[in-house]
Amino acid sequence: MTDVDGVSRSGVAQRVRPVAKPVEQYALRLGDDALLLSFRLTERVTGVPGLEEEAALAGIAHQLRVHARFLLAAAGQSTAQDEDLLAYRRADREYRNALIVELPNGDFAHTMVRMLFFSAYQRALYRALDHSADANLAAFAVKALHEVEYHFEYSAEWTIRLGDGSEESHDRVAAAVAELWPYTAELFAADDLICSLVSDGVAADPITLQGEWSEQVGAVLARATLGVAPTGAWRPSGGRAGRHTRALDDLLGRMRSFHRAHPGAAW
Amino acid sequence: MTDVDGVSRSGVAQRVRPVAKPVEQYALRLGDDALLLSFRLTERVTGVPGLEEEAALAGIAHQLRVHARFLLAAAGQSTAQDEDLLAYRRADREYRNALIVELPNGDFAHTMVRMLFFSAYQRALYRALDHSADANLAAFAVKALHEVEYHFEYSAEWTIRLGDGSEESHDRVAAAVAELWPYTAELFAADDLICSLVSDGVAADPITLQGEWSEQVGAVLARATLGVAPTGAWRPSGGRAGRHTRALDDLLGRMRSFHRAHPGAAW
Repeated sequence: MTDVDGVSRSGVAQRVRPVAKPVEQYALRLGDDALLLSFRLTERVTGVPGLEEEAALAGIAHQLRVHARFLLAAAGQSTAQDEDLLAYRRADREYRNALIVELPNGDFAHTMVRMLFFSAYQRALYRALDHSADANLAAFAVKALHEVEYHFEYSAEWTIRLGDGSEESHDRVAAAVAELWPYTAELFAADDLICSLVSDGVAADPITLQGEWSEQVGAVLARATLGVAPTGAWRPSGGRAGRHTRALDDLLGRMRSFHRAHPGAAW
Repeated sequence: MTDVDGVSRSGVAQRVRPVAKPVEQYALRLGDDALLLSFRLTERVTGVPGLEEEAALAGIAHQLRVHARFLLAAAGQSTAQDEDLLAYRRADREYRNALIVELPNGDFAHTMVRMLFFSAYQRALYRALDHSADANLAAFAVKALHEVEYHFEYSAEWTIRLGDGSEESHDRVAAAVAELWPYTAELFAADDLICSLVSDGVAADPITLQGEWSEQVGAVLARATLGVAPTGAWRPSGGRAGRHTRALDDLLGRMRSFHRAHPGAAW
């Protein structure tokens, strides 16, 4: 918690400064992913098939918020900006999450497929970051891995259950796969930041991650009787560069409403 | 998870039958308390002072959902009704929670004061149930105690910080205490069910609970510079007998919307 929460003692809104170091920019991407996925899950807690699932989603949202907090704190270190300032007070184009986490919620099948795709990515990523040259990131990855493994197993189990269930549940999960699949390419795209951090031994190599991801997600989809993954040329991206969908706007508006109405407030 | 979720295979809505045994009726009260407080916290996760608090509220909501699930499963045992059926498909007047947990959310100070009052009650209760003659309840209480102790400490810390903070934060927490205080009497009211279960060694004695509660809450309010507790004759009650406020109606409507629209659905 910041005392001033983006507002100086004179009451003038403080500008969020760009995150400085490459490793901090990398932590910002990972932190924004966890933050926005956590928000989407929180929105979804009520209205799932049963109390067990509500409890599970609330718990997963909690874990992702804790991850986001750690990663955003790491991102703001050299510019002395705390995690709340980065979480709530950046302009939309300063968010660096992958588009898949900001997309609006759909039905429960959609929530499970998004979690499957994303946690399979995070699992491969955190496994690789275990060996990162950045000691802070490596220590985080070791702790967070255990939790995203659970997210993967939970969503894999539901994807299989729904895919291999009734005709309607199969169709719903197939529709979610078709909608979300194109957004997964962005997770493995390499830009200058990634290339330079990979050669420094700090970031995970996207090629390796993609191989592991395809194998693990493919195995779950096969068990869910979902056949081969959809193909197509449309591969939306831009989130890592700050080009977002309209959905982010709406989400950030709700996230920030308290902080905008009551800058610096603790009640 | 129930497969049929209150709907028979012919598609006709199944009636939820009254919970049968006294100890099950007791578990139903405790389970409804945890369930509805968890819902209120979930509604409140976004729009609190910072990421740390968002993560904490999401985590507490998760723990209370898990408690609710266990208690409602215990409540439905002899009538073979599962926790989801009891959670989602009862009529409003069949809910047995104390009124304080169903009241609408206010500001963050309100959330903290409600959690303080309620977790102090749950803490005293679960400590006492550790010795319950009902082995199932006793085993639950031992596990849940550790978690409600954390809820108490978390909310106590915030109550003190806000009460002993700025003039505005002090006024806000004082307003929350004034609003919520009258509802605490209901937590310690004894009716026929309680009296008979106390004499069987199953339930906790409300008189003992009230003593412990007053001492612990009083100490927190004093440190929060909130002076003596408000007095007044108005002591709303009725929740344990199924007489609820309008707020429950709204809350249950949102809780049930998925289950009403898609009875038996798992997606």
